[in-house]
Order: sequence, then C-alpha cells, then structure tokens
Amino acid sequence: MCNTDWIKHSMDRQKIQHDPLTIADIRDAAMRIKEYAVRTPLLESSLLNDRLGARVFLKPEVLQRTGSFKFRGAYTKISRLEPPQRRNGVVAYSSGNHAQGVAAAAALHDIRATIVMPKDAPQIKIENTRALGAEVVLYDRYTESREEISARICADLGATLVPPYDDVDIMAGQGAVGLEIAEDMAAMGLHADKVISPCGGGGLTAGTAAALAALSPGTEVWAAEPEHFDDTLRSLAAGERLANAPEARTICDALSSPMPGEITFETNRRLLTGGVALSERDVADAMVEAFRAFKLVVEPGGAVAFAAALKGHVDIAGQTVIVICSGGNVDPELFSQILAGKREFRG
Amino acid sequence: MCNTDWIKHSMDRQKIQHDPLTIADIRDAAMRIKEYAVRTPLLESSLLNDRLGARVFLKPEVLQRTGSFKFRGAYTKISRLEPPQRRNGVVAYSSGNHAQGVAAAAALHDIRATIVMPKDAPQIKIENTRALGAEVVLYDRYTESREEISARICADLGATLVPPYDDVDIMAGQGAVGLEIAEDMAAMGLHADKVISPCGGGGLTAGTAAALAALSPGTEVWAAEPEHFDDTLRSLAAGERLANAPEARTICDALSSPMPGEITFETNRRLLTGGVALSERDVADAMVEAFRAFKLVVEPGGAVAFAAALKGHVDIAGQTVIVICSGGNVDPELFSQILAGKREFRG
Repeated sequence: MCNTDWIKHSMDRQKIQHDPLTIADIRDAAMRIKEYAVRTPLLESSLLNDRLGARVFLKPEVLQRTGSFKFRGAYTKISRLEPPQRRNGVVAYSSGNHAQGVAAAAALHDIRATIVMPKDAPQIKIENTRALGAEVVLYDRYTESREEISARICADLGATLVPPYDDVDIMAGQGAVGLEIAEDMAAMGLHADKVISPCGGGGLTAGTAAALAALSPGTEVWAAEPEHFDDTLRSLAAGERLANAPEARTICDALSSPMPGEITFETNRRLLTGGVALSERDVADAMVEAFRAFKLVVEPGGAVAFAAALKGHVDIAGQTVIVICSGGNVDPELFSQILAGKREFRG
Repeated sequence: MCNTDWIKHSMDRQKIQHDPLTIADIRDAAMRIKEYAVRTPLLESSLLNDRLGARVFLKPEVLQRTGSFKFRGAYTKISRLEPPQRRNGVVAYSSGNHAQGVAAAAALHDIRATIVMPKDAPQIKIENTRALGAEVVLYDRYTESREEISARICADLGATLVPPYDDVDIMAGQGAVGLEIAEDMAAMGLHADKVISPCGGGGLTAGTAAALAALSPGTEVWAAEPEHFDDTLRSLAAGERLANAPEARTICDALSSPMPGEITFETNRRLLTGGVALSERDVADAMVEAFRAFKLVVEPGGAVAFAAALKGHVDIAGQTVIVICSGGNVDPELFSQILAGKREFRG
C-alpha cells in the first residue's frame, strides 16, 4: 500500500466511523428487498387532514411482509452474509417483530433461524414466528439476559447473530422506508416538512433519517417513543446514551428496548430534529383513529408517531407530514378492548 | 349517411347494447381517477398461502379514498357529466359506501351532493358522508322507496342522480380495480386463475370482469354474496334477474341491494364463471383472518370474497387467486365484537 493509498484508506475508515450509513448503502438494501418486500403506499384521509389543518400521510408498514418494517433490515442483513457465514443459520432476539422478520428472511434464504423471545410477548408474534419456520426459545425478560442466551446459541450452532437495530446492514434495510417516502413524495411533487418515526432501539429512525438527509434535505425527522421508554429523547437532550428504568413497563412491546443503540444513536444525534414521548392513552386513541380513518390495524408501538401528530406533540399545523406506522402485530383481544374503549390507560 | 355507414352504425349500436362496457372506457376511467384514487397494492401472506395451498392476493379497496372502491365509479361519473348537468349538484342513494364515494367526488368537483341513506346504516358511514360535505336525508329502508325520494330531490333541485351500480360510467370506474389487478399481475409475471369479487348490485363485479376479459383472458371471475342476498347467484342459474326476499336481512349492509342491475347483470351473465353465497359466520371468520394475516379492517360486505377463498366455497387449491376486499367502513363496536368472538352468527 503506497502512502496516498494509506491516507485515503485512513480517511475512508474515519468517514465510515462517523457516517457509517450512506445513501448508496440504503439504495443497495432497497434493491435487495425489492422482490420480497411490499412497497407500502402513502395514505391520506381528506377528513383527517381537514380536522388537523395539515396534510398527513401514513406510511403503513403494517402491510409489510410479516406485519412490520423489520423484514426489510433482516432480509438485507442475511442477504449480505457470505455463504459460509449463512450456512449454520442465524439467531436473533426480539419481542416479536424482528423475530418474524428474521424468520421470514431466513426461510427465503433456506437457512435455519433460532429466535429468543420474551415469554410475555404477544401470542400472535410467537405463533407467527414459529409458523414461519423458526425455532423459538422463550426467556423471562425481567430476570434473564437475551444477549447472553443468544450468544450461547450462536456458539453452540456456529450461527450468526442478526442484531435488532445496532448494525449498519439492518439500518440500511430499514432506511428503505425513508427512501420510498422521499421517492413517492417527489413523484407527487410534494415536499415533506416532517417525518415522524416510532423509535425503539433507533434503527428505523436512523435509517429513515439518513435516507431523507440525502434525498429530501430540509425535511425534519422526529422520533416518537412511549412514555417511560423515552431513552432517545432523553439521550438527545443529554448528548449521550441514557437507559430506561429497569422497572419500566409499556403497552408498546415493540419499543421496549433498554437504551439507544451505539451506531443508531450516533446517526440520530446528528440527524434528528427532536423527539416526543406519548402516553398510553394517546397511543390507544391513535390506534382507534387508524382504524376509523385508514382501515388499518396498528399495534401500540406502531402507533406512537401517528399519536404524536394527532395529539399535537409535534407541531404539524399547515404542514405536510409523514407518520410511519411501523407494525400491526397486535393480539385480537387487546385490539378489541382498545376499540371498544374497555381498557384503562395511564395518561 | 350512406348505406354502409348505416350498417356500421347499426352494428355499433347493437354491439353497444350487448357490450356496453369496453376496455377503452375502463382505461378512460382509470386515467380520470388516477390523481385522486389510491392505487391499492396486491397483498399476500406466505403463512396463509402455506395453509391454503394456494397463492392468494388481497386487493385491499379498504385503503381506497373513503374506505371503499365506490369512489372510483362516483368520481368517474361526475367527471363525465357536462358542466351544465353538474351545476345543480348530484343526488345518490346508498347504504353508505357509495354515499361517501359520491360525497368525496362531489367535493373534489366543488358541487353540492345530497345523499339518501337508510337510517339504520352504520353510524361511521352516515358521519363520514356528512363530514365530506354532503347533505344526508335519512329514510326507512323497509317502508320507504329510496328511488322515489331521490327522484323527488332531483326534480326539486334540478340535480343529477349518480346511480349506485346500474350505469356504464359507474361500472367503468369500478372496472379500474380489474385493470389494476391485470396490470400488477403482469408486472409480477403472474397469471391469475381466479378473481373473486364481492357482489351487491354487480357494478364492481361487472367492471372487474370486463377489464379482465380484455386484459387477462383465461382468468375466471366469481361473484361472492351473503346468504339471503344471493340474487346474482340465483339469477345466473335462472338466466334472468331474480330479486331477494323483501324480509331478508344481512350483516353485509354494503351488499343488501334488492336484485342485480339490468346492465350489470347483462355483463355478469356473459363473463362470470359462477357465484357463491357465504354465511355470516364465514364472513366474520374472514374479517378476523384479514385482521390477523393482513392487518386490514374489512367490513362484513367487503369480506365475502375473502371468505369464499378461505372457506373453500370456490376451489383455489394450487391456484393463484385474487380476492377483492371491497370496503372497510365498519363501526368499531361491531368490529370489536367480531374480533373478540362475542357475536352470535347464523351458519
């Protein structure tokens, strides 16, 4: 390696450390998933727009394969593994949406998947993960470490871990959501003032923010979180990663990760305008409104961004705003209770 | 007019009488609605496909503007009225989906809409029709004639009736559903063995059948109806239009029209392979499956075609089948009861 090569290599490395997710990387992911993922449309309701005094589009990832955006990242990650790496299968830990995404992506690659899931995950998520052909290992999320259990299984099987969010391949796959938003808005001749994304570990939010920073500069990206799991909001304010209280509980099971990812937070810190935290009452109201106005089934964690727009936690007056509804895997009993107004909520 | 012109004119007229709906007419409708209607995607579930041993796509018109396919026909009809005809507004009678379609289409044309609705229509349909800016006139569907009330209002206002189904412009608009199915299947390199359509007065079914006859020859088109409202099924068997019993009741309010339309039946008689009638139990099960597998809210009348595939009323084994889910305007209370299994059904 000659000197200039070395300098270039060093600069590239440095660049990668500070900006690991490029639009080229997201475009590559979008190409990989194209044949298997649903290109979810942007939906709006003139009645709702009139009521809110804004133009609000939903990006319904509930219609995505496996019922959430997670398939995008999982498929991207597995498709990028070298064949010898893939051979012994993959392992993932997840409360349910990443589980199904990895199970479906592994099945499409014809490899084995083992998924570590909390035993109190929604029944529909556990059942579907099994039905997609994965082996499910249940654990107690309040006393056991999913990371340790997963590491042990990886060692036993020689398998590869597919992380839920803190991984550039995963973030690139989820970033296809932002890419599609930018492309569809451009095709309609519209500019998005704001995009609001549900935020757990931060993979969807970071991927979407990276895509929009490249393709729709001037569009603000906001993170929406459930109250008591507002780790990204507090971390953005503190300038460093902060964890949620171990005793915290939320109806938004999909967003109950303990703290922001290292790589995702690095991106989110640079690119997000802000974050908001939603009460369970606000989330339930947003689920009912998605039912009424859009005929969509949105799970609690999938509804936080819509709740932020609906309840004015993010100012949308007179603006064009896209809210990502990230998943729809909710048990019929819970959905039925929320729809009938028969469940008590805080907030 | 010379002789050959006269013969050609006569043959054209004859052709129009027997084949009033052309693919050119449907293409024209599709162009008219393009900017305002949602191009609904085709959705599939690998889990459901595995279970059914078939490839089943849903065409989710629940995501259409106003929550059902009816906007397509209503917009097409109003856009084709001459300006002087349009000036005094439009009148329509409808249990709710056509009502909302006409209200939305009239609002986009900035003209007045008066809608005659049964007073026992789902609350969500009456509310939305009013919210879309239409004036709603309620009537008793078991003692009053909606046709007479509508005719009187038309005469009073000098307004134009937008019929719910028995009209070539309306059928052309609904036919865009079939056009999109044919185009999307071709783009995926797939051939549809069967398309199953919910069937009330027959506009959606006839329009879809006409589009597919032109663009996807060899694709069978089937009509799905609720039991006690299987007028198209019985009319196909009899070779003439037969009515439903006046005392018949159904949970599928969107499909409770009294008998097949004259023009729609003429098309359906030529183009349909057959029809099936579904019990309320089958319809409710299909609504729950649409919730589970597709995260879609489908109203009872919108779920009959999916029920026909799900319950084997139409043979789909080993085939590629598209089921149209025609609408999603269902009250939260009813949906919640069905989801929780708390409603008793016949069948």
